[in-house]
Amino acid sequence: MSKIYRVNMTEKKVTVEDVPEKYAQLGGRSLTSKVVFDEVPANCHPLGPNNKIVIAPGILAGTAAPSSGRISVGGKSPLTGGIKEANAGTPTAQRLGRLQVKAIIVEGLATDGAYLLKLNNDGAELVPADDLKDKLTSEINKQLFEQYGEKIGIMTIGVTGDYKMGMAGVCFNDAEGRASRYSGRGGLGAVLGSKGLKAMVVDDAGAPGVEIKDKDLFKQGQKKMVEALRTHDVTKPGGALNSFGTAVLVNILNEAGGYPTRNFSDGKFEGAQPTSGEAIAEAVQKRGGGMMGHGCHPGCVIRCSNVYPNEDGTEMTSAVEYESTWALGANCGIDNLDDIAMLVHLCNEIGVDTIEAGVTIGVAMDVGVVPFGDGKAAIQLMDEIRRGTPLGRILGNGAWFTGKAYGTTRVPTVKRQGMPAYEPRAVKGIGVTYITSTQGADHTAGYTIAPEILSVGGQVDPLSPEGKVELSKAFQATTAFIDASGYCLFIAFAILDIPTGMEGMVETVNAVLGTDWKPEDVAPLGMEVLKDELLFNKNAGFTKEDDRPPEFMRYEKLPPHNQVFDIPDEELDKIWADVLK
Amino acid sequence: MSKIYRVNMTEKKVTVEDVPEKYAQLGGRSLTSKVVFDEVPANCHPLGPNNKIVIAPGILAGTAAPSSGRISVGGKSPLTGGIKEANAGTPTAQRLGRLQVKAIIVEGLATDGAYLLKLNNDGAELVPADDLKDKLTSEINKQLFEQYGEKIGIMTIGVTGDYKMGMAGVCFNDAEGRASRYSGRGGLGAVLGSKGLKAMVVDDAGAPGVEIKDKDLFKQGQKKMVEALRTHDVTKPGGALNSFGTAVLVNILNEAGGYPTRNFSDGKFEGAQPTSGEAIAEAVQKRGGGMMGHGCHPGCVIRCSNVYPNEDGTEMTSAVEYESTWALGANCGIDNLDDIAMLVHLCNEIGVDTIEAGVTIGVAMDVGVVPFGDGKAAIQLMDEIRRGTPLGRILGNGAWFTGKAYGTTRVPTVKRQGMPAYEPRAVKGIGVTYITSTQGADHTAGYTIAPEILSVGGQVDPLSPEGKVELSKAFQATTAFIDASGYCLFIAFAILDIPTGMEGMVETVNAVLGTDWKPEDVAPLGMEVLKDELLFNKNAGFTKEDDRPPEFMRYEKLPPHNQVFDIPDEELDKIWADVLK
Repeated sequence: MSKIYRVNMTEKKVTVEDVPEKYAQLGGRSLTSKVVFDEVPANCHPLGPNNKIVIAPGILAGTAAPSSGRISVGGKSPLTGGIKEANAGTPTAQRLGRLQVKAIIVEGLATDGAYLLKLNNDGAELVPADDLKDKLTSEINKQLFEQYGEKIGIMTIGVTGDYKMGMAGVCFNDAEGRASRYSGRGGLGAVLGSKGLKAMVVDDAGAPGVEIKDKDLFKQGQKKMVEALRTHDVTKPGGALNSFGTAVLVNILNEAGGYPTRNFSDGKFEGAQPTSGEAIAEAVQKRGGGMMGHGCHPGCVIRCSNVYPNEDGTEMTSAVEYESTWALGANCGIDNLDDIAMLVHLCNEIGVDTIEAGVTIGVAMDVGVVPFGDGKAAIQLMDEIRRGTPLGRILGNGAWFTGKAYGTTRVPTVKRQGMPAYEPRAVKGIGVTYITSTQGADHTAGYTIAPEILSVGGQVDPLSPEGKVELSKAFQATTAFIDASGYCLFIAFAILDIPTGMEGMVETVNAVLGTDWKPEDVAPLGMEVLKDELLFNKNAGFTKEDDRPPEFMRYEKLPPHNQVFDIPDEELDKIWADVLK
Repeated sequence: MSKIYRVNMTEKKVTVEDVPEKYAQLGGRSLTSKVVFDEVPANCHPLGPNNKIVIAPGILAGTAAPSSGRISVGGKSPLTGGIKEANAGTPTAQRLGRLQVKAIIVEGLATDGAYLLKLNNDGAELVPADDLKDKLTSEINKQLFEQYGEKIGIMTIGVTGDYKMGMAGVCFNDAEGRASRYSGRGGLGAVLGSKGLKAMVVDDAGAPGVEIKDKDLFKQGQKKMVEALRTHDVTKPGGALNSFGTAVLVNILNEAGGYPTRNFSDGKFEGAQPTSGEAIAEAVQKRGGGMMGHGCHPGCVIRCSNVYPNEDGTEMTSAVEYESTWALGANCGIDNLDDIAMLVHLCNEIGVDTIEAGVTIGVAMDVGVVPFGDGKAAIQLMDEIRRGTPLGRILGNGAWFTGKAYGTTRVPTVKRQGMPAYEPRAVKGIGVTYITSTQGADHTAGYTIAPEILSVGGQVDPLSPEGKVELSKAFQATTAFIDASGYCLFIAFAILDIPTGMEGMVETVNAVLGTDWKPEDVAPLGMEVLKDELLFNKNAGFTKEDDRPPEFMRYEKLPPHNQVFDIPDEELDKIWADVLK
């Protein structure tokens, strides 16, 4: 039977609770957001005793549904000050699912050092873990695998979490045990750091497995989903994502003039090609020691991750994703792929979100801390963060914070979270998502890039402001459901274009939960999640003035299209008008 | 005839405008807040082209009304993100009044260097002033007096304004020309820095003087006010303020257990006596070279300022006020008065608000950047700010920013502005003022210390939460009127206890404006100012969640009374409920 673990860090006590009826049909994001809404006072200090961290595997995590090994981490964000859900693909999600762990709720504060949560089929306990402090995440994973066996899942935070920095993420292991899969955004690693929960090991030996209420329906849905993923050009084996990784988008966005360059001062980067997915694949092929088509967890059909090699054919890091190669590349004017990959590696090692890191370094370069394009200098900046120097404290708290430290207006953030790799002035639907998402600037919250750039799920003009509010809203609602399901967001390509894919998603979820949802229920169910998040943010003091682009994007024209962000505030305000009266 | 100067920094153009009818009865704070409300988009970036700085002498500034040489500076605050009015006592207020300058509105941004505004009876112009950059404020004043003559008024910003730091104030000269009188709070120096307006010189040779519509009424009111100030124990010559300066409050607040110590962790400071007004007076007497009973501008009856001497009898700084000796003393655990005075001096020299500086250093000490009590280390921190090092960038952006950099919850701020020298857990009315003021934590916004501690204007129990919302509201409304009048807030003692003092205030204002206001109109007129400010803040995205004490004051008991801040949120929300529906 599913259960909730409640971990009180103040008292060092773990209790097991039945899952309340109201949480029975929730999982992943729908569960973390609901628990945060129910239990966290919206106006609490994110690093104080009243914030909580909620960890929940997606509904299907641990089942044989393809690409469904996602885990959500939720809480009040020290970066945005609002609600946060950040999810990652990791075998740990699957282990928790198989253990029938619906959620882990971490509350209170340990003031006497760092702790490790050991969780297995017999229960869970906290043990002291001061020895894990000041270590790189790869060292932590190595030590924990040695100590607790190879067949465990690991969650940890890096030194930046101990420092309680706003860009600290929550790190999970990948399929081979690397400390490389991140619930990266919004600084939830800092919240774990404030609570003194340094790591968790999950041993699922003897686990009962996910309870599936309708096994036949599950098989039927699973088959449809596998088929859809294997058919769609974007997600199929040997397709775009599988062959070149997510960084296949680099040349596409650059071509569209929507590839933010040198702190969002240009939409095209002259160094796009040498830092693209194609270039990554070429390095892997030439050098050996790397891998394209890497899966972050077993059972993934898409396998869009990679392992990037050093020049000598040894492994450098995993994974050089689109967002990472952009944030630490074009956005910093850096066109040396080895430097970029090293920056990704350092982010993983010290536990920070690569997007926030890159956006922050871009701002720092814009104000002259180090020059644009200087990859070695950027690597030095990462070391400042690792050491927690004053400069590291500035950078480690993100782009908004860094912009404020240096008094610049050119700060590409919404709700204090750095913007991802799509220029809102050139791709306006994603701009609406950045601006209106409950999460702060976040492309995954409503990935309108699909119809705006990739002609998936329709085709719309990226430069046009028309209809983008409605488009983003629809994507945001559907996404919230996917983020609850445990499926990777990349199934969206297949379910948008292939009706049986959508059926497969809903049927697998119904099979596990015993629900009878239809494809047309997906968006309304997602809206329920967004409502919890919107109301939490409202209670935390957010208003429509927080749903605004950075002012400079209203008056600074972006080359090559020479566009400003021209969707009026009043249009933006319509998006949640029915929820936030 | 009164006029408004409009200074466009983008175009380097100064235009002169008639005073619109709607501004005719305004001055000081009522005018700066009205213009900011009318002209500044509430959601603009405080350091961007759309923010403005409004400089307005009080209604009576330049007249012979006693203690009426106040000047207001207004704009959107980079520290709080809300509206800001910060006022100072300076002969420059009087010179502008005599020139019949109702306001100076500074708009746009100069991106090609620093400028000086020259203003005299013939008009105003901008001249390049890059040579003033990187100078201490005393050096700037010295240079400008040499260049433009001794009989000018000066406004300037320090290097911290050039750095656009959140604690940068706006500096005016005192009666002898020192760069020592500050519109300190809320970072308006950073706004001037962003605009490139480094300084202003005001030459009032040939000025027509303040137009007084009813000279007899003026004389009558002036006489009443002088009489009241000379009678009241707090304000009279040889009285508490005149003999010991504002720091006469040190022992009084310490005795009451309401003197915040070591970053608001105690209500009593063992080093109170050696850092009190009495100790300052003793040093002045023993060493020579200093002065008690110093007036910040000619025509002040109260004369509560001082000049603090070095051990060898040379001048060190002016002035060691109550707020400064507390912020840089008890709040940092520093009990060496010479160190404190040196810290005040350095604040003046680099252009920062002493309150924000002390609250910030207190936070930095609390997280271990340097030890509590180490005055020499604090002096080093000021040097980090002066040099704009990364640590200086953290500290220079204030207490809230510093707390965030180091991930602590013990940050005594409201709306990101540091709390002044009264503990809200021990003096709850002033706590309500801090929490609900449009200005962020600000004791001058509604100085309930009068009845709570000094038995002026009544007598109420400081520890009781009862009636404090109403008390603070009444004080805030009256204060807004006084801040418009040009009178120093310290006339409040005399007008609260002596009815003819109140009459004197109203009559002098009526005499200048030609109005027919009565003492009972004062609070409603002040409420009109607060309404503009509250609506601006609302438009900027403020909600009742911004009218909250720091969370730690809700659960951390303050010695010696072992009290938390126990006025419920719902009570706090009543204060502006009639304005903010």
